[in-house]
Amino acid sequence: MRLSKIIAFAAVAALPVTAARADEGMWTIDGFPAAKMQADYGWAPDQAWLDKVRAAAVRLTGGCSASFVSGSGLILTNHHCVAGCLQDVSTAKLDYVDNGFTAAARADEKLCPGQQAEVVTAISDVTGDVKGAIGGAVGLAAVKAKTAAIARIESAGCPDTKITRCQVVTLYGGGQYKLYTYHKYSDVRIVWAPEAKAPQFGGDPDNFNFPRYSLDASFLRAYENGQPVATPQHLTWAARPPVVGEATFVVGNPGSTQRLLTQDQLAFQKEVVAPINVTAFSELRGRLISAMQQSPAKARQGKEELDSVENSLKVYIGRVKAFNDPAFMGRLARAEAELRAKSQGNAAIGDPWSDISKATAAYRQLYLASRFTQPQGDLYSYAARLVRAAAERTKPNGERLPGYSDSALPLVEKQVLDPKPITPWLDQLELEWSLSKAREYLGADDNDTKLLLGKESPEALAHRLVSTTRLGDAAYRKALWTGGQAAIDASKDPMILYARRLDARYRQLQDQVDEYYSGPVTAAQAKLADARFAAYGDTLYPDATFTLRISYGKVAGWTERGQAVPPVTLLGGTYDRATGADPFDLPSKFVTAHSRIDPNTVYDFVTTNDIIGGNSGSPVIDKSGAVIGAAFDGNIHSLAGNYGYDGSNNRTVVVSADAIEEALEKIYPAPALVAELKGQ
Amino acid sequence: MRLSKIIAFAAVAALPVTAARADEGMWTIDGFPAAKMQADYGWAPDQAWLDKVRAAAVRLTGGCSASFVSGSGLILTNHHCVAGCLQDVSTAKLDYVDNGFTAAARADEKLCPGQQAEVVTAISDVTGDVKGAIGGAVGLAAVKAKTAAIARIESAGCPDTKITRCQVVTLYGGGQYKLYTYHKYSDVRIVWAPEAKAPQFGGDPDNFNFPRYSLDASFLRAYENGQPVATPQHLTWAARPPVVGEATFVVGNPGSTQRLLTQDQLAFQKEVVAPINVTAFSELRGRLISAMQQSPAKARQGKEELDSVENSLKVYIGRVKAFNDPAFMGRLARAEAELRAKSQGNAAIGDPWSDISKATAAYRQLYLASRFTQPQGDLYSYAARLVRAAAERTKPNGERLPGYSDSALPLVEKQVLDPKPITPWLDQLELEWSLSKAREYLGADDNDTKLLLGKESPEALAHRLVSTTRLGDAAYRKALWTGGQAAIDASKDPMILYARRLDARYRQLQDQVDEYYSGPVTAAQAKLADARFAAYGDTLYPDATFTLRISYGKVAGWTERGQAVPPVTLLGGTYDRATGADPFDLPSKFVTAHSRIDPNTVYDFVTTNDIIGGNSGSPVIDKSGAVIGAAFDGNIHSLAGNYGYDGSNNRTVVVSADAIEEALEKIYPAPALVAELKGQ
Repeated sequence: MRLSKIIAFAAVAALPVTAARADEGMWTIDGFPAAKMQADYGWAPDQAWLDKVRAAAVRLTGGCSASFVSGSGLILTNHHCVAGCLQDVSTAKLDYVDNGFTAAARADEKLCPGQQAEVVTAISDVTGDVKGAIGGAVGLAAVKAKTAAIARIESAGCPDTKITRCQVVTLYGGGQYKLYTYHKYSDVRIVWAPEAKAPQFGGDPDNFNFPRYSLDASFLRAYENGQPVATPQHLTWAARPPVVGEATFVVGNPGSTQRLLTQDQLAFQKEVVAPINVTAFSELRGRLISAMQQSPAKARQGKEELDSVENSLKVYIGRVKAFNDPAFMGRLARAEAELRAKSQGNAAIGDPWSDISKATAAYRQLYLASRFTQPQGDLYSYAARLVRAAAERTKPNGERLPGYSDSALPLVEKQVLDPKPITPWLDQLELEWSLSKAREYLGADDNDTKLLLGKESPEALAHRLVSTTRLGDAAYRKALWTGGQAAIDASKDPMILYARRLDARYRQLQDQVDEYYSGPVTAAQAKLADARFAAYGDTLYPDATFTLRISYGKVAGWTERGQAVPPVTLLGGTYDRATGADPFDLPSKFVTAHSRIDPNTVYDFVTTNDIIGGNSGSPVIDKSGAVIGAAFDGNIHSLAGNYGYDGSNNRTVVVSADAIEEALEKIYPAPALVAELKGQ
Repeated sequence: MRLSKIIAFAAVAALPVTAARADEGMWTIDGFPAAKMQADYGWAPDQAWLDKVRAAAVRLTGGCSASFVSGSGLILTNHHCVAGCLQDVSTAKLDYVDNGFTAAARADEKLCPGQQAEVVTAISDVTGDVKGAIGGAVGLAAVKAKTAAIARIESAGCPDTKITRCQVVTLYGGGQYKLYTYHKYSDVRIVWAPEAKAPQFGGDPDNFNFPRYSLDASFLRAYENGQPVATPQHLTWAARPPVVGEATFVVGNPGSTQRLLTQDQLAFQKEVVAPINVTAFSELRGRLISAMQQSPAKARQGKEELDSVENSLKVYIGRVKAFNDPAFMGRLARAEAELRAKSQGNAAIGDPWSDISKATAAYRQLYLASRFTQPQGDLYSYAARLVRAAAERTKPNGERLPGYSDSALPLVEKQVLDPKPITPWLDQLELEWSLSKAREYLGADDNDTKLLLGKESPEALAHRLVSTTRLGDAAYRKALWTGGQAAIDASKDPMILYARRLDARYRQLQDQVDEYYSGPVTAAQAKLADARFAAYGDTLYPDATFTLRISYGKVAGWTERGQAVPPVTLLGGTYDRATGADPFDLPSKFVTAHSRIDPNTVYDFVTTNDIIGGNSGSPVIDKSGAVIGAAFDGNIHSLAGNYGYDGSNNRTVVVSADAIEEALEKIYPAPALVAELKGQ
């Protein structure tokens, strides 16, 4: 449930479908539907409760969620959210992925490259300002006006970008704009992680499934000025079993949903985007599997990427299944028909569906070029960002590409400059794969294919670029960043030259997409938001935007083909499920700790909370505001969650605080950590 | 356009859609629509013409088509139809795939393992006999009665199975049964093949595309009693350029079409089968690509399999595209609605659509188990056939599984016993892949998954079986075949033990599929055939069944997004298209022959003929009955050909006899072969 770079392909914001059903909704923290929950559950949190969890909720810029769980900056999240960090800090001799990691003392906690933790400190409505700036502009001009306004608002909101970050968030697809102010912690260190086999027990076969036996938990710590930060606002740690039926809250950052795409947009997703995703990522999966079988080192080096690809692929396969489910698709079609009918004759609404239909038709012509002229791999990504940042930094703040404004640049800089090990074979595999897919989908004779490949093959080009670039060296990246446009112009680095070769086309395509799709669609979606508020009142939640949300629900199993699926698993069940064969082999420390642990500890459990990728690591909070677990997955029915929520079977999968504490006490002993969690 | 084992997954026979459009149709040779062609073209072949081409048309049991082109058993087919043979006869020192093969003398022509050539000698109608045997039986009983009748008819028709083969073919999905008698040639040898880079110029990017520059041609020779067979009925070789607009005939063995699946069957294909095909085979493709990059030897060993997988995958992707094309699917829906309307009130027809709907719903419950309990790979396939053949041979002919009757056994025996090199890493890769997909789609807790894996992982199990089985040794296979059930029972070979472990479940699933799907659907399809004949008269062609068919059409380009695609390419164009980078690098002998060849020779061309996988290698014949090329592919629009034909853009891609002769004279000199083709 991490928001990965792969999932981000599909990120087009839209709106919810009809009035939210029971337990449906990823609500903004300043728009919590207290009356609705009160009606459903006979209880709802008050403002003090909401303020407290907001202050303890953490966004990890790597694409996950988390929470403060001690007064000294200790952060609870998922193991799969720190797997990349564990790999980055491992050495040839010390593999923290396989063996787990426990910092013996604070001094042993290790920096996670590129990772940043962020806490919302304020939210203010800037809708009038942004909409006013757009005024009557349309297409590309509207997008440019909006981008400029956002850059200005963000800059004004956060003059000190060292410890604050400002972000204007587009809600309801353009119906509302809010300025989120964050306190940011750019020094985040790994504190504890179990052996990978404990969170990954069951591997891909069990991913998105339940019953589940996974210790998908880990701890980080936020530092400032070299010291752990004081976090008195942290959540209370509640190592207790969940009670079936009790209310649960998931507070985190769901990445992206598309719950009110129009029928035309859905058809585009179904007919064009989804088949490419499934096909291309299945092939990447296969390429990774075979490459990793070549040596234990490659198996280790590729593991995190393979896990991420398999996770995304399962989401894509689930979406195709949803698209092929006439009942599911029928519901979406009826929702649109209903909203159209209710909006009939409302002149202020007009016909945004037609506008989106035209824009989507235009986007169909741009999609392949726009998708496939962006090669994959860390090294290319460094090059592209260095090239773009150098050019953008010469422009006034309001005229830059989104993502390169003064408020956004510090994170780009950190991500590009943080030292991080590069695995050349893996980078080459991804670059080669993406170039070969580009040729396949664009066609061998297409001009963009020629731009991408020249007279080289994907294989030869990827090999040449990866084997000769110096961008794996953080010092070289730093020199290019600091040297700005002059350094980029002077660089003969092959990857930099390659990124420069593609840059003009990238910008041209972005402009075309803005002119013919994003501009018109943002305007039309603002109308749709109005239509929806008019038809269904104001108890609506916006689509997910990787910003802070709260969902409420309860601990509950569900019924699968007539069979009741119990809501909890027990730690002892792991030993029954183990076959000895990967990925169902026991972690070695589970074997040695077998006699010590309490087999009846609740291990994982499910709740009805409505979540999606990006929510990984979110604290699962009880009515008292204490954390009883960390959300790490959804069940198989949650895979359609991008487009809709069905409370009868859509479930969040959680690792219990109780099991985490049992593990910290008896399997991966970390007494200081336990004491810290208990506030001792 | 080879009928591969992969395509065979989708083989469910059905019926054509409405009265055939111009140039649509893969007609039986005894049902050629002469009047229709006469009306369309002002000319049609007479019976003598049809008899002549029938006698020269060759089916290759490897899944291709071909034709006799000299009086001494010389056979023209595609290079991609003999790529497996070239690989099998190559040695560590002599790679006939990379370098091509030219037999200096007849004594140097090499046997292709497992290959058999077959020529239709008679066709007779046995509909009454088969339908009579089925009588009032339903479900499994009907299938058993049909199977028994077919075994009896085939046995009686071909008492000498050494040189004849009898096959009862189900046409119109059960509307008609015909007995095809073949003369068979089980000693087929490779005569000539170009370097693989010549037929494969453009590789996967150009596959199913046009303009095209491919020398996808090769020659085999049929032997009997160690001597080339006399084939006075051969086609005349016409090394001349095609004339735009001239009538062309493709005579070959299209493998399978499904042009009148009901809407329920189409929904099943679209919602269940197609997504699995695309996903699973994309992953296999990726696994192969990475594995082959490990060494030049692996690149060579895996090439044919990768080509085959990529070819099938492109077909599957094309089908998904067709399913996602509302216009295409709407046409199929309207055709069904029209037939239903025309059949309204015809009591003899009843409601076969409902019967198929129910049967398809039942098949949905059986499909995953039935598909995934059949692991992939040559070694497992040997084991499964040895185990099944041993058991079946103890039964009376009429009670055996289809495929193990007296008439079918000789080919099974040949395919199992012919010595053929095994590539263990490749076999292991495929077995592992298929087992891991089984676990993915069936689920880790499914009983069939447990049957397949026990407590082993797909990786460990595949490795254990492939590394310890002796089935790669043809002598051991022979001993097991000859030893029959006793030898199988006594064998401790791990792959044999594994095949035995799965055998009962295989039989159980086959019975269930027969009872709930094949039985009812065959009966319903016979009714649909009646409905169609009643509604549209008797000018109908049956769906493809990998039996002899003739299609007529003409040499013609088409219009692609407003641009005219010319109908021919020239040999000299290869040099312009070459980039130097794989797969657009010139074959080495093309480079050295550059100054010698005539650049204006027509290389490849397109025709409107309606063909599909299995037609690869089919002779393209002119009005005079001479062969002017070999069909080797379809264009991108032909990918929907499984479900429908659109003459406006659906094209057959042909390598010209003229270019083949130019190559034989100047690029890969084979003067004796040229003389033989010219009848000198």
